[in-house]
Amino acid sequence: MRTQVVIIGSGPSGLLLGQLLYRAGIDNIVLDRSSKEHILGRIRAGVLEEGMVGLMEQAGAAARMQRENLPHDGFDLIFDDEVHRIDLFGLTGGKRVHVYGQTEITQDLMDAREAEGLQSFYEASDVRPHDFDGSRPYVTFEHDGQDHRIECDFVAGCDGFHGICRQVVPDGAMETFEKVYPFGWLGLLSDVPPVHDELIYANHRRGFALCSMRSKTRSRYYVQCLASERAEDWTADAFWDELRRRLPEETAERVTTGPALEMSIAPLRSVVSEPMRFGRLFLAGDAAHIVPPTGAKGLNLAASDVHYLLEGLRDYYADGSEAGIDAYSQRALHRIWNAERFSWWMTSVTHRFPDMSGFDRHIQRAEFSQLVHSKAASTVLAENYVGLPY
Amino acid sequence: MRTQVVIIGSGPSGLLLGQLLYRAGIDNIVLDRSSKEHILGRIRAGVLEEGMVGLMEQAGAAARMQRENLPHDGFDLIFDDEVHRIDLFGLTGGKRVHVYGQTEITQDLMDAREAEGLQSFYEASDVRPHDFDGSRPYVTFEHDGQDHRIECDFVAGCDGFHGICRQVVPDGAMETFEKVYPFGWLGLLSDVPPVHDELIYANHRRGFALCSMRSKTRSRYYVQCLASERAEDWTADAFWDELRRRLPEETAERVTTGPALEMSIAPLRSVVSEPMRFGRLFLAGDAAHIVPPTGAKGLNLAASDVHYLLEGLRDYYADGSEAGIDAYSQRALHRIWNAERFSWWMTSVTHRFPDMSGFDRHIQRAEFSQLVHSKAASTVLAENYVGLPY
Repeated sequence: MRTQVVIIGSGPSGLLLGQLLYRAGIDNIVLDRSSKEHILGRIRAGVLEEGMVGLMEQAGAAARMQRENLPHDGFDLIFDDEVHRIDLFGLTGGKRVHVYGQTEITQDLMDAREAEGLQSFYEASDVRPHDFDGSRPYVTFEHDGQDHRIECDFVAGCDGFHGICRQVVPDGAMETFEKVYPFGWLGLLSDVPPVHDELIYANHRRGFALCSMRSKTRSRYYVQCLASERAEDWTADAFWDELRRRLPEETAERVTTGPALEMSIAPLRSVVSEPMRFGRLFLAGDAAHIVPPTGAKGLNLAASDVHYLLEGLRDYYADGSEAGIDAYSQRALHRIWNAERFSWWMTSVTHRFPDMSGFDRHIQRAEFSQLVHSKAASTVLAENYVGLPY
Repeated sequence: MRTQVVIIGSGPSGLLLGQLLYRAGIDNIVLDRSSKEHILGRIRAGVLEEGMVGLMEQAGAAARMQRENLPHDGFDLIFDDEVHRIDLFGLTGGKRVHVYGQTEITQDLMDAREAEGLQSFYEASDVRPHDFDGSRPYVTFEHDGQDHRIECDFVAGCDGFHGICRQVVPDGAMETFEKVYPFGWLGLLSDVPPVHDELIYANHRRGFALCSMRSKTRSRYYVQCLASERAEDWTADAFWDELRRRLPEETAERVTTGPALEMSIAPLRSVVSEPMRFGRLFLAGDAAHIVPPTGAKGLNLAASDVHYLLEGLRDYYADGSEAGIDAYSQRALHRIWNAERFSWWMTSVTHRFPDMSGFDRHIQRAEFSQLVHSKAASTVLAENYVGLPY
């Protein structure tokens, strides 16, 4: 087989790239080691920046999203039961975010790909990119008991942090920066109406809590927990109790509880690998970087990577210019580090750290106080939350 | 002897309070264990917020300051040789800071006190406040070989972090929060024209550097050094070399060097003690809190303490209301913690920490990048630097 770009990974970044490349007239094949059902079974976040929404439109996959997404013009930040609303819309001159589950994005992109009849291989095993340091890379894999080989111009590694594309980067070619936070998030998904029509980020003496949603009838709640805890040791009842303890009384009373569709613990960490291009192999999204979920930046950063990569590849195929693909890594990383800074900061001000000194706690409270009293400080938060321009 | 308020400490906060109380018709006596000459020999910072300037006017001691101070409408922030000017005046709607040495402030306040014929005791030993938890406190001390006792209504502890007033606070009545930074500032004072007419804060791979001044002919420079270093191990030549290495080439070339009038190393730390009132004893300024010098907040915080304390005492003597003195601690501490947060932040983004990870360095660079690209972020810095409202 032969194509122009082999995309490894059929999550939202791989599928979005595939759709955008196709609409730019660039052939591509998507490979994934998992089944469609497995990919669609992953529970992920769903706060979209307008840049991501625009890419979905550009990809021709935005119809259902435009009907079903919940536009959010702000969110509540709570510190020790004191509420401060961040007016995203007002502070950014009319920008907002859109709540629409990542699973829905993936579904819409899979549907769009299928509608166009584009080639994908799911449950492909032993996927491996070769010779990407030369001018004629190829990718081998096994599918349905057969060995396959695809000749291509480029390989896009959209296969996440544990995917093969990170692993084939030559030793010493990539530098990785990391920060691990001393806690995790215990999340519960439930088919109950959300307690509030906007998100609530609460920094409480007992730890962080987040009230979010996937739709008007499906809520997603989180509580900060120890990194060492196990979800199996929690019951839904214990979760609801802990959540309500971390919210102001009048909010806690309005929480509708219900059975857990899913409960799991996610560790929090920040990771960035540099560069993101190795010859004719590009990494994008989680394959190159991870953010803690606090700022809702994971999916949105994958989208901006895809945007920069698309621009580079489009220029290459339009007139042979390599300027765009040469600049990919630097352009993507500039935005990534800004989002990493924001996600680190948002995590720092909303969580209780086990090793916090009394001084640190007072500084955290002063940071909250500054958000309340300084419009400029709230604006910095808002402009990062809605997403910096591409 | 008898007076209304005994002020312990004849630095700028004690003298300013004395002058303001006097002009509000409240008798006071100032005591200091040091001589005037010793106090005036201390080298201290000299970046004044407009609030401090206003208090000097209110104290009737602003005439020379108004002639000689250098108004500063901005400063340069440099990260790895990239320069970003913070336009204080433009970002804050017309506010600025004023460069005028703390020693000059002290001199002007001493002169004003002397001109009014107000009572002060210098070189007073064994100064000690008594019975401030009751309604009739008094202060004892020895002066010129004689024992003295002053009956008073209140005692103001303006005698710094190592003064007696902190020490007489009963065990357990005060909680202290502290952060020690793993470096110091090596400072050099020289009668040479400053390299630039505004301050320069530089974060360089070799460490932080600050170009500041006391006047148009007297410069004050600093370089970050190890906390363990000793000023005696440095020569002026070595200092000038190190300073220039940390500045962009075109700036370094313009540095005028000269003999050192003074060279010393200051440790950097943040300290806040709560509360600041113990019956009829009030702590103000360094007696209650210390900031790292990065944000130039030390003297200005002492001034806001004096402002809140003056308001409380004025109300008390006007109509017997204790509301103002009851609120003193809380009002002062709210502003103090904001300034502590700012000083910590300003220190964090401008210094190289010995234990910084690669991730931390990238976050620091992203913070600088945000200041360059976001007007809101520069505004937050500017509004803190010119000083939050009282």
